[in-house]
Amino acid sequence: MTTITTRTVEYPADGLTMIGHLALPSGTGPRPAVLIGPEGVGLNDFQRRRADALAELGYVALAFDINGGRWFTDPREMLAHTTPLLADPARMRDIGHAALKVLHAEPRTDPDRIAAIGYGTGGLIALELGRDGVDLRAIGTVNALTTGHPGEADRIRCPVWAGVGSQDPIMSAAQRDAFAAEMQSAGVDWRLTVYGGAQHAFHHPPVDQQTVPGVAHHPLHAERAWRDIVGLLTECVPVPA
Amino acid sequence: MTTITTRTVEYPADGLTMIGHLALPSGTGPRPAVLIGPEGVGLNDFQRRRADALAELGYVALAFDINGGRWFTDPREMLAHTTPLLADPARMRDIGHAALKVLHAEPRTDPDRIAAIGYGTGGLIALELGRDGVDLRAIGTVNALTTGHPGEADRIRCPVWAGVGSQDPIMSAAQRDAFAAEMQSAGVDWRLTVYGGAQHAFHHPPVDQQTVPGVAHHPLHAERAWRDIVGLLTECVPVPA
Repeated sequence: MTTITTRTVEYPADGLTMIGHLALPSGTGPRPAVLIGPEGVGLNDFQRRRADALAELGYVALAFDINGGRWFTDPREMLAHTTPLLADPARMRDIGHAALKVLHAEPRTDPDRIAAIGYGTGGLIALELGRDGVDLRAIGTVNALTTGHPGEADRIRCPVWAGVGSQDPIMSAAQRDAFAAEMQSAGVDWRLTVYGGAQHAFHHPPVDQQTVPGVAHHPLHAERAWRDIVGLLTECVPVPA
Repeated sequence: MTTITTRTVEYPADGLTMIGHLALPSGTGPRPAVLIGPEGVGLNDFQRRRADALAELGYVALAFDINGGRWFTDPREMLAHTTPLLADPARMRDIGHAALKVLHAEPRTDPDRIAAIGYGTGGLIALELGRDGVDLRAIGTVNALTTGHPGEADRIRCPVWAGVGSQDPIMSAAQRDAFAAEMQSAGVDWRLTVYGGAQHAFHHPPVDQQTVPGVAHHPLHAERAWRDIVGLLTECVPVPA
């Protein structure tokens, strides 16, 4: 493990004060940078640790915030916040652009090599940045397969990798097919990995022992999805030796 | 690159004399071993090179033969040989078991850590070994998604990773769904990666410039599929340090 530097960053977006977690790799000079979008629940140490792990691999990494510093443990509260957000691509893009601005303001960021990854709500924000024409080098999402406004996927010019659980009732097989068709007809360089038996949010440890139907942690597939994400970054935004 | 040793192995199977290509890693002592099933066209240096590449990573690797030493450049000749083979799981298993016997006879093979991977016809043979109850540590297939005899997938007790091109007319979306359903209902630890835009045999360089509808080389996805296969082996049969 290498020495990394982390700091909390506050910035405005979506009418809230967002509290992100920025992790910088050891060394000096510009490095490829990664936006990391959290699950709808928001940021806790689990999501922040993703940024730390990428910084250990040599990336400038921002675990961005979508909830104004809140982390929801009550699924109803989470849905009350995210449902209207997911229905409003302009709000999602606003949140994504604000996070991007934080990355751009960081001197260690190589502005020509920025990737966006995310989980659930955060993954959809990564996709919306692509559909908005942001010049990203890679988009990686887990459990985030909604289609966008017709025609806008044409603006995605980087490889897209998406992962999803086969038994995810929220990201149905029909939704997977629609997403694949959108990517394919837009001429995007895309891939989709289906994790057999995994349910929604399989990448996330249980929250407060609550049981939500269709949601379950799957540690083995979670590890694989992380390796798949790291593989995407290694391919598209390799860290200079 | 490390020094590897290769040799041609002749052995009987399916009423033919098979001519496989065995590659041994440097060093001494037992190592995890991999069966590598070829496309229906059979073995040429492209398929043999896969065994060499795995030996360079530390595996005992056998690129096994399915055609009695032939390599078909004429698609009609290839189909005339493989179509009856694909309709006869017993023949496929015979070919797989004969190859497995070669691996077991090699002193460098760790008999408790054998994986089977394959492409097209060779991938189906890897799956049939699993459905036949062979104790494999991993099965990886590209363009090989046919379902087996009802109930036999229950015998697969290792992780299965499968890759396929989204635009493969031979491995249709319906076939992908049927394969996924078979794996899921058998309780197999499975994954499926769909490579966007890739057609059938996307992993294989063009054969004699012939154009076959629905078949096309996709170098970028081919490289990714290879990395995905190596990732499966790294997870399930890691080479001891």
